Amino acid sequence: MNDDFYMNLAINEAWKYQILTYPNPAVGCVILDKNGKILSIEAHKQAGKAHAEVNAVKKALQVLNPNLIFPKEDDKIYEFIIKHHNNLLKNSKAYVTLEPCSHYGKTPPCANLLKEIGISEVVIGYEDKSDLAKGGANLLKEANINVKFGILKDRCFELLEPFLMWQRGNFSFLKLGMSINGVVSGGIITNLDSRKMVHKLREKIDLLVIGGNTVRVDRPTLDTRLINNGKNPDIFIYSKKQNFDKSIPLFGVENRKVTISNDIKLIKNYKLCMFEGGENLLNNLPNFVSHILIFSSTSFMNRKAINADVKIQKLFSFDMKDNFYIWYKIKS
Amino acid sequence: MNDDFYMNLAINEAWKYQILTYPNPAVGCVILDKNGKILSIEAHKQAGKAHAEVNAVKKALQVLNPNLIFPKEDDKIYEFIIKHHNNLLKNSKAYVTLEPCSHYGKTPPCANLLKEIGISEVVIGYEDKSDLAKGGANLLKEANINVKFGILKDRCFELLEPFLMWQRGNFSFLKLGMSINGVVSGGIITNLDSRKMVHKLREKIDLLVIGGNTVRVDRPTLDTRLINNGKNPDIFIYSKKQNFDKSIPLFGVENRKVTISNDIKLIKNYKLCMFEGGENLLNNLPNFVSHILIFSSTSFMNRKAINADVKIQKLFSFDMKDNFYIWYKIKS
Ligand SMILES: [Zn+2]
Ligand SMILES: [Zn+2]
Repeated sequence: MNDDFYMNLAINEAWKYQILTYPNPAVGCVILDKNGKILSIEAHKQAGKAHAEVNAVKKALQVLNPNLIFPKEDDKIYEFIIKHHNNLLKNSKAYVTLEPCSHYGKTPPCANLLKEIGISEVVIGYEDKSDLAKGGANLLKEANINVKFGILKDRCFELLEPFLMWQRGNFSFLKLGMSINGVVSGGIITNLDSRKMVHKLREKIDLLVIGGNTVRVDRPTLDTRLINNGKNPDIFIYSKKQNFDKSIPLFGVENRKVTISNDIKLIKNYKLCMFEGGENLLNNLPNFVSHILIFSSTSFMNRKAINADVKIQKLFSFDMKDNFYIWYKIKS
Repeated sequence: MNDDFYMNLAINEAWKYQILTYPNPAVGCVILDKNGKILSIEAHKQAGKAHAEVNAVKKALQVLNPNLIFPKEDDKIYEFIIKHHNNLLKNSKAYVTLEPCSHYGKTPPCANLLKEIGISEVVIGYEDKSDLAKGGANLLKEANINVKFGILKDRCFELLEPFLMWQRGNFSFLKLGMSINGVVSGGIITNLDSRKMVHKLREKIDLLVIGGNTVRVDRPTLDTRLINNGKNPDIFIYSKKQNFDKSIPLFGVENRKVTISNDIKLIKNYKLCMFEGGENLLNNLPNFVSHILIFSSTSFMNRKAINADVKIQKLFSFDMKDNFYIWYKIKS
């Protein structure tokens, strides 16, 4: 199989953690042994936890030596690998969707890790242009490691784009729960897996934007009760009218700021925003909302479907038992 | 990576040719070299052409020796491999979604091919219970090849199920072209890639079933003009009323039988049937229609969506530029 095949595996693994890695970018990494056998397909999963490369090297070593007992703390894995890799990954090959980092942040630089384990080639999807992280490829090249750039660059850019938008000030996306035939309202559409994933997203975002009509009709809580110890997001009710029944559960959630306004510019004070709603919101999306995430049930429902005229581009889909979700980018 | 990972690659490759292989089943095959590197991911693509195993062995040999010039005729590849494999695939490993065949049909038996090239292990998803083909695993075992059964058996069964239904008398599925928000009518929904794929399916089926209302409103041709030399399917117009304007293009297609009836039992005289239609057909599907194939555009459209109450199970999805299609099974 060619480089595209392995880079695709890394990209798809990383997409599973899109948004969940904030304030870090979603990154995937695949490691092949010296004979070209796949040892690991991993991703960065959460800020403060191991980078994609560290997870992939760890998994690869576990495959080659199942007796190796890794420390439970993610921040000790890097040092453990440096001490115990035992040249098992000598002349292996790595595929990374983003140039490996070269700076000491919460974790030591991944480029250095790849050098230390004796990797012979690193295939990079997208060049890291950030001042903090760039230089990983140079560090590798100086160690005589073969570096290849630009494999599936467009798909790697798509994966990184939400993070780049966030870095420039704001990343906003619309989340919809939908039946196969476009029904988004009138009762619960999606299953528990989908709703748990939505609660995970709510924990990561800075602001949840919701239409005034949805608040009045659905009387939602908009919390993160389906996941443990989830932080509840601030709420922006997009509405001209200021009067809402304050017994609607969302107003009773602790440690939450609720803004009621139709001044969409206020939203851009927040960097990572998820819009939740239906037809009204889809047809009145601010132009800075760039992506749509659709959670889909696998049933046709006998209710009115959402109506709109919006062109989108499919980026990634993921199956969860009898539901699936798809990330789309809105075409301008 | 474990057996599931590689079997999944074989399954997904085979699904791309679902229906197109008729009257043969869809089968996929992955070959790893002796070190576990993926050499090929292939499928059976068309009846009379090479089986999945032959395609996979051919591709694997091409990877290992790019100078090997294979004959263009598919029926000569088997013999060519036997003569020229040069032990390049000694101790390699194969994943096959269906037990390799052991009979001399249009092509010699695949089990024998795997034996001849010196493969050391064959992982089989689904046991072939047909009188004609069964015995492949025994042939392999007698040659001291390691045989493993039942990896991702359920997914391998799903892949094979349309063929098994067809063998028992009838496989019928509903094809829909749909926008993201469930619009299926009122003009062209899907792109040229989707429509070409539909024409490929029309070439393979024995009967195309369409609702009377769709015939009157859309005045379709229902031919295979988007692919070269396509055979045009017989048509069954599902309608109580017998009177149709015979200038509707479908009546003018040569070498075609058109039946107009509301006796759904007549359809079961045909073994492989595709239903094309919209809301009316979906809500009046005969109970022997077991699957739904949805071609999806990537746009929300400002028209009325299809309405129904049907639960389905997602089996496989495939991207085609800005369209994608998904195979579903109807839940009973
Ligand atoms: Zn890093
Ligand atoms: Zn065969």
